[in-house]
Order: sequence, then structure tokens, then C-alpha cells
Amino acid sequence: MEIIRIPRVMQETSRGHLLHGRTVGLVPTMGALHEGHLSLVRMAREENAVAVVSIYINPVQFGPSEDLSKYPRDLEGDMEKLKREDVDVLFLPDDALMYPRGFSTYVDVRGLSERLCGAYRPGHFRGVATVVTKLLNIVSPIRTYFGQKDFQQTVIIRRLVKDLDMGTEIVVCPSLREENGLAMSSRNSYLTRKERNAASVIYRSLLQGSEAVKSGIIEVEVLKKLMMEQLTSEQVISEVQYCSVYSTETLDEIERIEGEALLALAVRIGNTRLIDNMLVTPGR
Amino acid sequence: MEIIRIPRVMQETSRGHLLHGRTVGLVPTMGALHEGHLSLVRMAREENAVAVVSIYINPVQFGPSEDLSKYPRDLEGDMEKLKREDVDVLFLPDDALMYPRGFSTYVDVRGLSERLCGAYRPGHFRGVATVVTKLLNIVSPIRTYFGQKDFQQTVIIRRLVKDLDMGTEIVVCPSLREENGLAMSSRNSYLTRKERNAASVIYRSLLQGSEAVKSGIIEVEVLKKLMMEQLTSEQVISEVQYCSVYSTETLDEIERIEGEALLALAVRIGNTRLIDNMLVTPGR
Repeated sequence: MEIIRIPRVMQETSRGHLLHGRTVGLVPTMGALHEGHLSLVRMAREENAVAVVSIYINPVQFGPSEDLSKYPRDLEGDMEKLKREDVDVLFLPDDALMYPRGFSTYVDVRGLSERLCGAYRPGHFRGVATVVTKLLNIVSPIRTYFGQKDFQQTVIIRRLVKDLDMGTEIVVCPSLREENGLAMSSRNSYLTRKERNAASVIYRSLLQGSEAVKSGIIEVEVLKKLMMEQLTSEQVISEVQYCSVYSTETLDEIERIEGEALLALAVRIGNTRLIDNMLVTPGR
Repeated sequence: MEIIRIPRVMQETSRGHLLHGRTVGLVPTMGALHEGHLSLVRMAREENAVAVVSIYINPVQFGPSEDLSKYPRDLEGDMEKLKREDVDVLFLPDDALMYPRGFSTYVDVRGLSERLCGAYRPGHFRGVATVVTKLLNIVSPIRTYFGQKDFQQTVIIRRLVKDLDMGTEIVVCPSLREENGLAMSSRNSYLTRKERNAASVIYRSLLQGSEAVKSGIIEVEVLKKLMMEQLTSEQVISEVQYCSVYSTETLDEIERIEGEALLALAVRIGNTRLIDNMLVTPGR
């Protein structure tokens, strides 16, 4: 596995592969890799001649009161895992090369970025859109892989890639879950064992909503109530930031489910913010 | 000369050239081509295997009270000229393909975009940065050519290309001038013959400043006064929006000239807004 730290070198390496007709797939990550990430890596490995994984904790997507400094880091463990998956290139850019002095360009996906998590993390998706634009320009992948757990992120990036004509295919892979249903996330490591057990209520709440849809309930007010009842039954949930049903395209909260829709929520358990979602379609 | 109207087709054509090792040079224009544009085209023709010229009047860079609807258009004349210059591809994208329904992504170069012209044309450089990002992603040029007349634009685009790792070289070519010194611009066609003659005062004002610098004057207050005196001696100038000396990197107004600096101004003659600039270095 080649390790590249300099964006310009990564760019030349990637262009070299393209010039030789080798397709490049990119899995952008912030490290602290879990099985969810590895499922993306395997997909990238399978579908492309060259699999590139980036590990970069992008400071620009963290708010001033957020967990940038304590975000989990495990570079050694990550490298082990990526080698085992037969990754070709690990791209590990340095802050000083990603955001050099004088940096002043930001990419904004309006509207989509202000909803759901965006309302609670102002500037977060501007940071995500900016770093993803940079990574895509540096790596020029044919395909780029994201997890469905960050559903809003995937919608924003699809929009961005279309609007700016970036010419990569965005592949979204299903969320992986712990045995108790908790969606895998690097931030789960913040949870105590007790919190982690209790956090399964998030999944149960989504399941409750999804089963209600299967049973024919399509009124969002009713579904919301069912999911909220489940969530608040667990004392460990200290805040519900949002929990409702949304359009999968516009991310607007909807009133009735007509086609495919998104059940999505964000909660806090102690100081840990967790998100999860589930796609539903009535009559399925 | 191939004419391409569909961004995706342009993208595939350009990638085909790159895959075959042919360098692509891009001259982005809004049409109504004059000798200034053609000097860029000749440079692109000379330095690259494939010369692409785009003609696109980007609606997003015009403010609501600006001249979008009456911006000069002469597609037939433009095509004649480009054929004569042996251009390979004319890219003529359609608004509906550049900004389809739901478009919501904008690129912002902060700070640089708010100064000089930016202060008088809010949102203008966001529009420029967004369309240039799109054109660069569609055409993937090795080199992209701009005229020095739009100096602020070139600084912003250089910043953008660096910040977003776009991997094209920005080539800036000298402004061309009419016999009376007026910088060539498609907007000169708005001027009456009388206004066009009088507009030579813009060049004389910059010359006055530049000669003062040569004679050892480096205090910006003094230079500004000299240039303003010249400008306001001509009654046809209805407004001076700015006229001073700026850092070529940050575009900040400076107090004393120490290295290379930019004399720049924007004025109105009737309803026509004209800009011009000149680079100066003390002791040269």
C-alpha cells in the first residue's frame, strides 16, 4: 500500500492511472475505521482497478464547539485494516497542504445544507462540500463511496457533483449495524458500555416507524409520534434534535409518505451526538 | 471547428483528448469577441494540441439591475473569427444544461470577491467562480487563458484553482487597447462615438499614475490624486467607483508602493461601466 501525503503527488499518481486506462475508486474517510468503512473499501476494491482511501479529519467541517480535537484517531489500526483489504493508495493529506495560508474558497450547497443536521451544525456541510470538492479534484475518481448513515451528506454531495459537473459516480452503500442495531460510527467510541446498550433505542425507533409504514400508516404526524415515544422511553437520550420523515431528494419534512421517504433522526446521549436513518416505501 | 452544446459531450470529448495525450487549452468568453479575446485564442492555439473556446453569457454573474439582457451578442461573427483562428472546439452550452432545475451549488472566494468591483457588483464574483469551476470541470484544460483587463477576476480564479486543487494553469495575457488607449471590451459597443473618444481619459489616468511611479512617487494618496484629477477632467465620466493602488495578491488598497502594485479603476460613462488597470513597479 502506497502512502501519499502531498496532494499534488496524489493528483499526479491518479492522473497516471487514468492515462493508463485504470479506473480509480475513492473512499473518503476521517479514519477510526470500522466495518462500515471497510464495506465501502471492499466495494471500491471490487469495482475499480485502483482503490484509494483518504483519511483526513477535515477541520473546516467542525464547528468551534464540536469534537475536532477529541475525534477518535487510530492511524496504526487503520493502516493495518486497509492493508488487509488490499488498498492501493492511502491518501493522508496534511492540514497545511489542504488549507494553506490564504485559503479562501468555499463550496456551498444551498438549501440542502441548512436542514436536518445543518440546522444544528452551521457551516458543517459547507466544510464537507469544500473538502469533498478538493478530494475529488485531487484524486479524480471514477467512483466515490459513501455510507448511507450520513444520508444528508450523500444528497448534498450528489447535488454538488451534478451542479459542478464533477464527473464521478457517487455510490452509496447501506449502513452497517452493531448486533443491537446501533449504526456503526467512529463516534460510538465516545459511548460508555451502558450508553451503547441503551443507544439501540435509536434503531428500535426507526424500526417502529418503518413497520408502521409497512402496516399502511403514511401520516407523518402519526409516524413521528410513534418514533418519538420509542426514543423518549429511554432515559439515556438527553436531546432529540430532529426525528421525522423527509423527502429523499429535497430533504424537506413531508406530511404524508407517497413514494420512497426517509425516516431520520439525530439525538444526543450525554455529549455524544448520534444520527441514523432508514428508507421506507409504503406498500413494501 | 466542432461545435458542442452539451456539457457531458464536451467532457467526454476533452477526456478523450487527454487520454490520447493531447493537451487541451481553454479560453472562456462571453462572446462578442474582439482582438483581446483573439490574442488569448492565439496563445491557446500555440501552446496546446487542442484549443477550446467557450462562449457563454453566464446569467449567475449578472446582478438584477445589470446588463444581462442587452449584453452584446454576435454568434455568427464570433464563429467566423474562431474558424479563422483554427479553433478546434467551440463550446456553446445552454442555460438549461448549465443551471438545470434544482441547481444549488455556489463557489465563493471570500475576501477577494468583496473588494473593488465586488463592492459594486454583489454576487458577481460568486457567479464567476461558480461558472469557471463548472467550465474547468467540463473541459479539464491543462491551461486556461484570461485577459489582464479583468485583473481581479484573474486573482480570484488563481485562488480558486489553487484552493480547490483544480490542476489547470491560469495564463493571464496583456490587455489590448484601441488606438486611443481604451482597453478593448465587449461593453465598449455600448459607447457613442463621442463617449468612446472621451473614454481614452481612463488610459491617460493610468498612464499618469504609472509615470508618476516611474518618477519615484510611491505614496498612494498622491498617486490617487493625480489619477483622479485626470479622470475628473473629462466631463463624460459620470461616476468614479474606485481608483487607487492595490496589492496584486490580496487586492487590498495599499498606502505606499513597495513592490509590484496594481493601479486600478472603475468608472461609469453614462450607463456604461468600464474598468481598467495597469501594473507598476517602482524603479522600473
